[in-house]
Amino acid sequence: MSSPIDETRELQARIEALVGAGDLAMAGSLGAELHPSDLADVVERLEEAAQVALLSALPAELASEALAEMEEGEERGDLLAALAPEKGAELIGELADDDAADLMGELDPPEQQKILEVLPDRTADELLGLMRYDDETAGGLMTTDLVAVEGSLTASEALAEVRRQGREVLDFYTVFVVGPDRTLLGTLRLDQLIMADPASHIESLVEEPDATVGPEEDQEEVGRLIARYNLASIAVVSPDGVLLGRITFDDVIDVIEAEQTEDILRLAGVVDEEQLRHGWAESVRTRLPWLALNLLTASAAASVILIYEDVIDQVLTLAFLAPIIAAMGGSSGTQSLAITIRRITVEGSGSARGFVLKEILIGLVIGGVLGVGIALLAVLVNGDPMLGLVVMLAMWGNQVVAGFAGAFVPATLDRMGVDPSVASSVFVHTLTDLCGFFLLLGLASKMLLGG
Amino acid sequence: MSSPIDETRELQARIEALVGAGDLAMAGSLGAELHPSDLADVVERLEEAAQVALLSALPAELASEALAEMEEGEERGDLLAALAPEKGAELIGELADDDAADLMGELDPPEQQKILEVLPDRTADELLGLMRYDDETAGGLMTTDLVAVEGSLTASEALAEVRRQGREVLDFYTVFVVGPDRTLLGTLRLDQLIMADPASHIESLVEEPDATVGPEEDQEEVGRLIARYNLASIAVVSPDGVLLGRITFDDVIDVIEAEQTEDILRLAGVVDEEQLRHGWAESVRTRLPWLALNLLTASAAASVILIYEDVIDQVLTLAFLAPIIAAMGGSSGTQSLAITIRRITVEGSGSARGFVLKEILIGLVIGGVLGVGIALLAVLVNGDPMLGLVVMLAMWGNQVVAGFAGAFVPATLDRMGVDPSVASSVFVHTLTDLCGFFLLLGLASKMLLGG
Repeated sequence: MSSPIDETRELQARIEALVGAGDLAMAGSLGAELHPSDLADVVERLEEAAQVALLSALPAELASEALAEMEEGEERGDLLAALAPEKGAELIGELADDDAADLMGELDPPEQQKILEVLPDRTADELLGLMRYDDETAGGLMTTDLVAVEGSLTASEALAEVRRQGREVLDFYTVFVVGPDRTLLGTLRLDQLIMADPASHIESLVEEPDATVGPEEDQEEVGRLIARYNLASIAVVSPDGVLLGRITFDDVIDVIEAEQTEDILRLAGVVDEEQLRHGWAESVRTRLPWLALNLLTASAAASVILIYEDVIDQVLTLAFLAPIIAAMGGSSGTQSLAITIRRITVEGSGSARGFVLKEILIGLVIGGVLGVGIALLAVLVNGDPMLGLVVMLAMWGNQVVAGFAGAFVPATLDRMGVDPSVASSVFVHTLTDLCGFFLLLGLASKMLLGG
Repeated sequence: MSSPIDETRELQARIEALVGAGDLAMAGSLGAELHPSDLADVVERLEEAAQVALLSALPAELASEALAEMEEGEERGDLLAALAPEKGAELIGELADDDAADLMGELDPPEQQKILEVLPDRTADELLGLMRYDDETAGGLMTTDLVAVEGSLTASEALAEVRRQGREVLDFYTVFVVGPDRTLLGTLRLDQLIMADPASHIESLVEEPDATVGPEEDQEEVGRLIARYNLASIAVVSPDGVLLGRITFDDVIDVIEAEQTEDILRLAGVVDEEQLRHGWAESVRTRLPWLALNLLTASAAASVILIYEDVIDQVLTLAFLAPIIAAMGGSSGTQSLAITIRRITVEGSGSARGFVLKEILIGLVIGGVLGVGIALLAVLVNGDPMLGLVVMLAMWGNQVVAGFAGAFVPATLDRMGVDPSVASSVFVHTLTDLCGFFLLLGLASKMLLGG
């Protein structure tokens, strides 16, 4: 038996070949055998004209799901805009409202207008309601399609109501229990409802939700709550407690992955979102600004070397030692930074004082060890024990700076409301470079040359 | 209305105070008002003796859940070992088998034995079955508690069967459909089962699962499949198709978070897992090995400067330029590395040739821009246009090296079966340091001094 993954790959290749050969009818009917996520891969690999042709050849239900599963961004918006407005509206109409709103958000306003005009008024109003919310908030993630029952029903009445409402709702795992004014009373997982005594009242079964969010809540917090309380879905409620929508675990997995990709890339100095499939020119555009800034800061730090040129002239070994001290400061600073940014993500920056002190302590210990190492190396190369002492002190001091900066900078940026993963790295490296050069060359000037 | 988060914090603080004051009965009864995840926070902040006292005062059901929600690792194992074996066995017996097996895996074999002896034989055998699997595989994540019905039943018979089995199973979202020999035929979400015509046969409703995994499958792949196909649970099947267990989305969210924390920390040179709440001594132990290695490689790279000491002696500006060239190589290399590691995580290293070429091209373009920048700076400082040319070429060449190494090193490590996030960074930085120094000083020696 060949594995399902191989089968999927083979089917994808055949569909691509059929689209290439212009046999859209056959491509469309083979496409129906793929999961929308796998079909989205095929669509993403095609040229725009072929994308439009394939989507038009597929059943609208599948074409819309494939569109929803494509990577978010400009390319997807362009594709939707390239379809006839009637076709675009048909696909949008097929989707769950959260996916539909996301897609619409990727269009320019005039293109949005064209599709909204073709949609039924009710659908258009619903979409406009969701499109108000920022993409990265709970409102931007939520769907208003959900199953809600009143607390006064019995379990068997509720089950009948769930069956009635469920026809309109995709994938629900949780039933929301509401009062007559649609204020949220609590939640009931489907398995709990099925297991309940049919005559018991829902009010007596319902559990207060472990967590709810407001529509303006940041998506990162939504992810944190769903992960913490193992929720299949979380209710979005208005400030006065009215149920507005739900967010399910699958949306949140996407958010967690996207946020963490962002964290990794930002920490590495890719500030703007570089999408993995970007072309080289786009990649240059997203990376160059940070590198240019980095060239400035690295040059500024290295200019300490220019100031102390005469010291280096007299002790050339310092030209060998300076980059090592700076590099080790950068390495330790990056370690502190990575740990601290994770702590801020997980715990918030409230306990900042504690972790700054801890990083300073770690810097003291590690700096002592590394200081002895580099001192031995310096004496081996140069023979002067005093140079050994100088370089030991410089390494030690710079490791403490690295620990302090690696924890203090991101905690401070976070409190100022700036994402610490964006700017921390450049601050920390500039500081460790500057201090490393100053400590080494300043101490050498004093202790070796009596400057 | 105070927010639920504030209420939780207040309750946590009161419980901590009560434990401190020795009023365990009151602490235990207040603890019952918290979600196990929130209670786990309280337990984690206590000393071991207080932890034991609080867990013993809580209802076993809640104490076991709180234990399961504590951060995985040695500390949790020590706590379980500190309980009387009878108490330990009681808590283990309360848990879902996957959580129980994880906990047991954190004990030393003699401690495991003590608890296994007290457990009922059937539970002990089940646990031993799960404990065979490596922690980071599908088998290590799965639970054998699941709801499975035979395909020959009608929907209403199946629902009755689900009600019967469901009493023993925690949180299920999916019903597995099996043949008489327990081979997996497919899955049915609970909402689909509820919505189905009661007289219809399950065989006609069942969907072929979008994905299944074998028990040895790596947890990262399990996460990828659940995320890709938006699954609430995924079936674990033996090579001959027999249903062994299930893994639910909440386990996978934890895996995705843990794997990504690991990726970020490893990329930053924290190789061993540093847990966020480690003490400073433990942090030093996990970070120092990489830094010591880094000191060796940075020194090796900087020894190029020693080789060319006479060149620096004649053109002191080179001592200022060398760390800049090396630092910029490191920065670009880190960007390429971060992007490439994400690509490997998302797409695998199959298309490595494509992304190595892309990174080289990006290096060529970015190197040209940065090269002109540093050449201007060098001429400004030193006045010699020939030095400007030397430093431009060195920057350019090193940026190409950075792009190449940033993509090639992780792709190669991945193909060799080594986790690219562990070792890539040190390889890439050593390469960019070495090449940066060689290019700058070698070219300077030839072009400025005619060496």
